[in-house]
Amino acid sequence: MTTTYATNIESIRQAAERLAGKAHQTPLVRCQTIDACAGRELLLKCENQQKVGAFKFRGATNAVALLSDEQASQGVVTHSSGNHAQALALAARNRGIAAHIVMPENAPSVKRQAVEGYGAEVILCEPTLIARETTAQQVVERTGAQFIHPYNNPHIIAGQGTCGLEILAAAPGLQGLIVPVGGGGLLSGICLAARAINPEIRIFAAEPAGADDAAQSMASGELIPQTNPQTIADGLLTSLGDLTWPIIRDHVESVITVDDNQIISAMRLLWERAKMVVEPSGAVGLAAALSDSFQSLKDLEQVAIVLTGGNVNLDQLPW
Amino acid sequence: MTTTYATNIESIRQAAERLAGKAHQTPLVRCQTIDACAGRELLLKCENQQKVGAFKFRGATNAVALLSDEQASQGVVTHSSGNHAQALALAARNRGIAAHIVMPENAPSVKRQAVEGYGAEVILCEPTLIARETTAQQVVERTGAQFIHPYNNPHIIAGQGTCGLEILAAAPGLQGLIVPVGGGGLLSGICLAARAINPEIRIFAAEPAGADDAAQSMASGELIPQTNPQTIADGLLTSLGDLTWPIIRDHVESVITVDDNQIISAMRLLWERAKMVVEPSGAVGLAAALSDSFQSLKDLEQVAIVLTGGNVNLDQLPW
Repeated sequence: MTTTYATNIESIRQAAERLAGKAHQTPLVRCQTIDACAGRELLLKCENQQKVGAFKFRGATNAVALLSDEQASQGVVTHSSGNHAQALALAARNRGIAAHIVMPENAPSVKRQAVEGYGAEVILCEPTLIARETTAQQVVERTGAQFIHPYNNPHIIAGQGTCGLEILAAAPGLQGLIVPVGGGGLLSGICLAARAINPEIRIFAAEPAGADDAAQSMASGELIPQTNPQTIADGLLTSLGDLTWPIIRDHVESVITVDDNQIISAMRLLWERAKMVVEPSGAVGLAAALSDSFQSLKDLEQVAIVLTGGNVNLDQLPW
Repeated sequence: MTTTYATNIESIRQAAERLAGKAHQTPLVRCQTIDACAGRELLLKCENQQKVGAFKFRGATNAVALLSDEQASQGVVTHSSGNHAQALALAARNRGIAAHIVMPENAPSVKRQAVEGYGAEVILCEPTLIARETTAQQVVERTGAQFIHPYNNPHIIAGQGTCGLEILAAAPGLQGLIVPVGGGGLLSGICLAARAINPEIRIFAAEPAGADDAAQSMASGELIPQTNPQTIADGLLTSLGDLTWPIIRDHVESVITVDDNQIISAMRLLWERAKMVVEPSGAVGLAAALSDSFQSLKDLEQVAIVLTGGNVNLDQLPW
């Protein structure tokens, strides 16, 4: 029996065509010092240098491109205070349509300003998930806008998967991939892209210990939602979705969890040695690569890591 | 009458062959937000991601490679507390020879440790130019090591010129280049490389207002040494050399000076929007591109800027 997933390699390849000229094909770089720390060759996929500073622009651009003209005319809506908010705002502006972004009223003003800078409307709500969902639903009813979920959406997953296409095109001999996991949009998209090209490639998820729903889900074999996450990696607080989970369950070899000290150390190493501004969530993949458990694995001479984003407040660094 | 310069395009191409597999071909990236600030397309050449975090590794590797076996066996020496020191230390280690680095006794311990981390011997001296030169000469007499000047050396200039080859290969339609100038090794090497490939290309130097010997030299038509430099761009304090000056004089259209506030603003823009860790000296080219005087220039739709280095103390940021 074949499992049917939310998307597939053909949709990911089509997404790549849609993204051409709109999103960056980001660099894949090496750093000798970091290789020495990891004990193997690491290829760093610089999604921190993607437009809006995060891979989220890939999925948002694909989802916005796939709206019919009639749908598009009514705009898009999401709830997010993070990189998906900025990504959807810019993707909507690029198509010339409205974006409505629901944010908790305690979101940092710098994040609100970034979204408004891309021309989106910000709607504030109480800082609870139920308030965010209710408010977004109200916007849908008021405007007719399309709701674009940050990860549990086939077009988002396909868009994020284009990152995997680029990595494997640049490094065809790659033996492994490490991808940070929050809701699993990027991880599941990369699983489908990478495994379609090389069915033998080994894929690892990297997750904060303080938000380890993916590790718990893999251990139990069923989707376990995240409750009360506590980590500096504020882009990885969410639960897996019912579209991302089956892909991750079937294609990920293991989930490597790392604590906040490991995340901050990896982040600083990237800044100091790779000269790359990476946010805490974006450094979780490297933190996993430097962990004892990953270093003990064999037959992984060349491994790619996605540096997922670089949006950080330079006046509030964690060191 | 043809002026004979210290090096030429053939030597730069040979240097590129020597550097293959030893130095990085660094990325050339774009950032839409920075383009919007500059009013034109800027291509950022990421020498902050070069080995040792600076373009200096190109020249040092070329100079070390060109030593005869007999010369190499006696090692190399230089005086520097900056990126040339680390570059020479690593280039020497890569060839398996000794490096002696003369540093002022007030150099930050982090810089001393970096050089020692590459296996070089550090010799401390009083923090004056005369003490540095005298101490380096004593090392030459004691060890027979070859003195490798940080910029006033034909092999160094040819090595730095490889950066220009890479830029023009990646962007053949380029109309202009902005290169920070201190001693002028990088600028003169890029002048020879770029003008040999495209005699029409326009080359601009970027210089801190507090260390403006190149601007003064260009204005007067003769080499004027730097005295008492005062700028945050601590990699650009030195005077032009007699080998770099004639090349700069003949090929640079103008020198754009920028003050420390402009440098810090450009540096922060690179960190925030290009997600790139760049040191103050490395941001001087962008500061020049954003200046009113440069923005008023016509027929420069696509311009490349060298981000020369990224070695900065993350615990002491200038904001």
